[in-house]
Amino acid sequence: MKAAFYTGNRTFAIEEIAPTRPGSTEVQIDVAYCGICGTDLHAYHGVMDNRIGLHRVIGHEMSGTIASVGSDVGDFQAGERVVVRPLAACGRCPACQRGHAHICHNLKFLGLDTDGAFQEKWTVPSHTLHRIPVDMPMELAAFVEPVAVACHDVRRGRLRAGEDALVIGGGPIGMLIAMVARHKGAGVTVSEVSSHRLEIARSLGFDVLDAGRADIGKEVHDRTGGKGSDVVFEVSGSQPGAEVMTEAAATRGRIVMVAIHPDKRHIDLFRFFWREVEMIGARVYEPEDYDEAIDLVARRAIDCESLITGIRGLDEIGPAFADLDGDARSMKTLIRVGV
Amino acid sequence: MKAAFYTGNRTFAIEEIAPTRPGSTEVQIDVAYCGICGTDLHAYHGVMDNRIGLHRVIGHEMSGTIASVGSDVGDFQAGERVVVRPLAACGRCPACQRGHAHICHNLKFLGLDTDGAFQEKWTVPSHTLHRIPVDMPMELAAFVEPVAVACHDVRRGRLRAGEDALVIGGGPIGMLIAMVARHKGAGVTVSEVSSHRLEIARSLGFDVLDAGRADIGKEVHDRTGGKGSDVVFEVSGSQPGAEVMTEAAATRGRIVMVAIHPDKRHIDLFRFFWREVEMIGARVYEPEDYDEAIDLVARRAIDCESLITGIRGLDEIGPAFADLDGDARSMKTLIRVGV
Repeated sequence: MKAAFYTGNRTFAIEEIAPTRPGSTEVQIDVAYCGICGTDLHAYHGVMDNRIGLHRVIGHEMSGTIASVGSDVGDFQAGERVVVRPLAACGRCPACQRGHAHICHNLKFLGLDTDGAFQEKWTVPSHTLHRIPVDMPMELAAFVEPVAVACHDVRRGRLRAGEDALVIGGGPIGMLIAMVARHKGAGVTVSEVSSHRLEIARSLGFDVLDAGRADIGKEVHDRTGGKGSDVVFEVSGSQPGAEVMTEAAATRGRIVMVAIHPDKRHIDLFRFFWREVEMIGARVYEPEDYDEAIDLVARRAIDCESLITGIRGLDEIGPAFADLDGDARSMKTLIRVGV
Repeated sequence: MKAAFYTGNRTFAIEEIAPTRPGSTEVQIDVAYCGICGTDLHAYHGVMDNRIGLHRVIGHEMSGTIASVGSDVGDFQAGERVVVRPLAACGRCPACQRGHAHICHNLKFLGLDTDGAFQEKWTVPSHTLHRIPVDMPMELAAFVEPVAVACHDVRRGRLRAGEDALVIGGGPIGMLIAMVARHKGAGVTVSEVSSHRLEIARSLGFDVLDAGRADIGKEVHDRTGGKGSDVVFEVSGSQPGAEVMTEAAATRGRIVMVAIHPDKRHIDLFRFFWREVEMIGARVYEPEDYDEAIDLVARRAIDCESLITGIRGLDEIGPAFADLDGDARSMKTLIRVGV
C-alpha cells in the first residue's frame, strides 16, 4: 500500500509499505479522505521536526472504513464507517486522574507522535473510533475532527443562544467556530486581516470586521450597544488578536484561547479585573465533542462543504501542501487517500 | 462633628462640619471603626487625585450604628448595627441590565466617588446596608468589607474542599483570601517576597513560599505530585506574579485575577491553551458575599483579629497612614472614628 512520509524540509516521499497488522485491541482502517490541518502545515514547515522526526506519516482529519479488527475488539467490525479521535492518554498523570485525559500530560497525538492517516491503511487503538452514519459522505466525515475542535471551543466558552460572539481570525478553525456558534443561536462577527478571508466569511453570512482597518474593540462595543462580545474566540495567535480580545469582551465576557501563541503576549490584566472578564484555554476535544460534531455534520447543520477549496490525490500531497501554504484564499484541502 | 478630609499630597485635615442629613431613602450612621484599605493608600499617594479631588473624606471598611433614617426607609431603624456595601450602580448600563450591578460601567464607589467613613456620621443609601449580629465587636465588623472581597474571589475561583490553592501576595487581602480558602477546605500556600509577611503567613498556619528565592512554579508542582494549584489567586499586581500564576496552575486550574495591574504584563497564553487553564477577573463583591463575610466574621471562622496591627483615633489618621505606608510588618490599621 501507499504511504506519504514527511521527510523534512517541506518534502513528502510516497513509499510502498506493508500495512501495519492490528494488535489485539486495534483496528485497521481503509482511509478515505484526510484533510490538511494547520498543525500539519506546521509540521511541513519543519518546526516540529524534533517531535515527529524525518520519516513520519502525518494526518489525522480523516474518514474511512474498518478493514479488519484485532482479536479483542468486540465493539467494532470490518465494514463499519468511522472517524478517529486521535488522542492516546497515559491514564496515570494528574490530568488523566482528574478526568481530563484529552489534555493528558503525556498525551500522544496520533498522526504526529505516531504515524497518521496520509496512508491507505491506518492502524489505531479501537478506543479512538467513532461511528459515522452510513449516508455521511466521506468528504464531509473528514471534517468531524476540526468540527469537534470548534464544538469543544464553543462549549468551553459556555456560549448561549442570543449572545454575541466575536471570532478573531478567519482561518478554517475560526470559520468552523463561527458556524458552530451561529448554530447555537449566537450573533457572530468574524474579525480578519485578509481581504480574501473577509470575503469568504461574508459569503458564509457572517458579520465581518477588517482587523487591518477598524478599531475592533470600539467597533464591537458600538455594534452591541456598549455591551461588548459575550464570548470572544482568539484564533489568530497574534499580539493584535491578544489586544482585541480584552478590548472586545463584555463585562463577565468569556475569552476562549484557541490559538497557539508561540511567544508571551502583552495582556491588559486590569481589564480582566475591572470587567470580571474570563479567559478559558481550549485544546483538542473530548468524546462528547466528537458526538456533537458527527451530529452537526450529519444534519448539515454546519456547511463544511463550502470550506473545501481543493481535493487532491495522495500522490499529489507535496504540491497540495505547497499550494495551501500561505494562500489565504484556501480553506480546506482534502487528500483523497484510498477512494 | 469631625471629618478627616484627604487634601492631597499625603495629607489629611480634620475639620468640624455639620453632618449630612439623610435623604428620604438614606440613613445616617454613627461610624465606629473604619479600616485603612490598600485603595485608601493609593488615594493617599495621590494617584487618584483626578478621581477623588483634593477635599474628600475617604474610607469604606467600616462598622457602625444607625443614627437616623430617611422618611422612606422602612426596613432599617435607628440603633441597628450595620456595615455598608459601598457600591452605587446606575441600573441602566449593560452590566446592570445583565445582573452585574457590582461592576456597573458607571459604578460609584462610596468613600472615593462620594465622601466616605473617616467621619463621625456617614450618610449613605439604605440599599447599601447589611445588619450585623448584636454581639459582633465593632472592630471585627470593620473587616466585613475586605472579607467580602475575599469571599467573592474564592467564589469566583469555584474553590472546592480538598483542592490546592496558591495565594500570590501576602498582604491583607491575600491573607484574608488564604483564610477563606482554608475555611472552604483547601490546602493553602502563600507566596510572598517580604520576610515579615512570610513570617505572618507562617504564624497564621499557612504553608509559605519565599518568592524571592524559590522557583514557585516548580515548587508548587513538586508539592502537589506534579498536579499544580487548582486555584491560584494573583494578588501581587506584579510581573513576577503574572508569570508564577500560569506556571503554578494545574491542568484546568483557575487563576483568579484579584490584583490591579497598572501595566500590561507578559503572559504565557500557550500555557492557557495547553493545560486548559482559566483566568477569572474578580472585583469587589455582590450582596451574597457580604452575607457570607458577616457569617464568617461572626462565627470567628476566620481570624480577623490577628490581622489588626494598629488602632488609632481619627485625629491620628495622618500618622496612621504614614506609619502604614510601605511597612510590610503592618497588616490592618483601624481608625477608631466614633467609639
